Amino acid sequence: MLLGSIEAGGTKFVCAVGNEDFQIKDQITFPTTTPEETLGKAIKYFQQYNLDGIGIASFGPIEIRANSKKYGYITNTPKKGWQNVNFLGEIKANFDCPVTWTTDVNGSAFGEYTMSMLANEHINSLVYYTIGTGVGAGVVINGKFLETQGHSEMGHVYLKRHPKDLNFKGICPYHGDCLEGLVAGPTFEARTGKTGKDVQINDPVWNIMSFYVAQAAIQTTLSFRPNKIIFGGGVVNELFLQKIRRDFAKLLNEYVSIPNLEKYITMPLMANNGSATLGNFALASKAYHS
Amino acid sequence: MLLGSIEAGGTKFVCAVGNEDFQIKDQITFPTTTPEETLGKAIKYFQQYNLDGIGIASFGPIEIRANSKKYGYITNTPKKGWQNVNFLGEIKANFDCPVTWTTDVNGSAFGEYTMSMLANEHINSLVYYTIGTGVGAGVVINGKFLETQGHSEMGHVYLKRHPKDLNFKGICPYHGDCLEGLVAGPTFEARTGKTGKDVQINDPVWNIMSFYVAQAAIQTTLSFRPNKIIFGGGVVNELFLQKIRRDFAKLLNEYVSIPNLEKYITMPLMANNGSATLGNFALASKAYHS
Repeated sequence: MLLGSIEAGGTKFVCAVGNEDFQIKDQITFPTTTPEETLGKAIKYFQQYNLDGIGIASFGPIEIRANSKKYGYITNTPKKGWQNVNFLGEIKANFDCPVTWTTDVNGSAFGEYTMSMLANEHINSLVYYTIGTGVGAGVVINGKFLETQGHSEMGHVYLKRHPKDLNFKGICPYHGDCLEGLVAGPTFEARTGKTGKDVQINDPVWNIMSFYVAQAAIQTTLSFRPNKIIFGGGVVNELFLQKIRRDFAKLLNEYVSIPNLEKYITMPLMANNGSATLGNFALASKAYHS
Repeated sequence: MLLGSIEAGGTKFVCAVGNEDFQIKDQITFPTTTPEETLGKAIKYFQQYNLDGIGIASFGPIEIRANSKKYGYITNTPKKGWQNVNFLGEIKANFDCPVTWTTDVNGSAFGEYTMSMLANEHINSLVYYTIGTGVGAGVVINGKFLETQGHSEMGHVYLKRHPKDLNFKGICPYHGDCLEGLVAGPTFEARTGKTGKDVQINDPVWNIMSFYVAQAAIQTTLSFRPNKIIFGGGVVNELFLQKIRRDFAKLLNEYVSIPNLEKYITMPLMANNGSATLGNFALASKAYHS
């Protein structure tokens, strides 16, 4: 069996072909330009293969309600030229196999869920956050996405402000100081004038960041009660995660029981953002067999 | 068919008997004293009837994982004498019919979901908050509870503090200024020295309250993307809800689309806290037929 994966980001597309054992046979990356050019490249790439299923994990917002006329569309994205693009329809029109459709972060969440199952973690639910240029989250509950009125947008929740950060207005163009506005990668420059990779881990700004991310983990814990919360994306590293765990424990104050904090708040099992490709393979395989 | 309902609160128990059309045939209320006495009264009451199913919606925290040895127990509640009580087991031992088990707020959420279906609202998911002595929330997604590692505890999330409320420390014994610590009924006295019912709706304290409750609605919206969010409990009234809607719209800033705010943020369809009894009947009936 041959499966295709499109990880569609606002900056670049990663297309991959793999098998049911989630082994990548081939992979290409190209920049996200116009919809015509970018989707055209993806289609041309996959036409070299005889695929049994394709999984798409796309930047958003996207329409995920199967009963909507716009199902499969990228909707009101700020990304120029990509508003109202029938992404799923375009792919389906060119391939005679099942095609799955979800958000980029849901794809990653499902990849991590699949890896957890393969690693015999016996979990049924997880939440995956990416903290990079923006902040997004994907949710898997009992092996499924939520399928309600839309996908999660937990990057934009409001949080208790850190007492030493009250003057920072945040950088979210919609909300100012929502989670994304307070912890996305570009906040390093906005706060310190330095890019994130130049801000040492002992800089106090990391404590401000961890106070906010820990609150996001609290919200997710109290809302979904998942088996684990994964933090991926360019801003996250293990030392930062240690601070997040410390603040999380303090803020939660043992209100609900978390068996093992090191396993509960973790980095992705898949290195180098590989989760979405794996998730796409798993979703495409599931669609093929259903 | 005859169905029983136990709405088990920390202050009082409401036991009711009704039919599959959700009509209440009989109902009694008694104070929550010791587990032996209180559960004994409920059992004695139901033994007058030949019940086909019983639904329990209980104060918590409770164990809801079916694979746990403590399934059906009230666990580490602050309520004296009620820690580690096998509530479900006690009822099951006395009745030869299906018995369902969930939290008080989940029971209310399911009652409101059932009512919404009967009213042809065509919804599949909702979140029910109660704001009274404490704050709790129940979640129904695609007609089901979440069934993860525990039940929601969204009364204890952290929020951006209102600029005119920064000196109020909050009253939650676990978290200080979490949602419950900032908006539960007793905060009126803590802030103003007056009980809630004596604080006029034009008092600025209501604007502080609505700023926080609106943030809870934002979190719930961005996490679950439900069809609607219901606010019940003694603190809530329609004028307060108007303020919440106003603040919600401002804070969300049209980031995701909400078709009709008046229908999205609402009071319960069932007056006088009747939702939990209806939810219990619906859950017991479902268990009988499954």
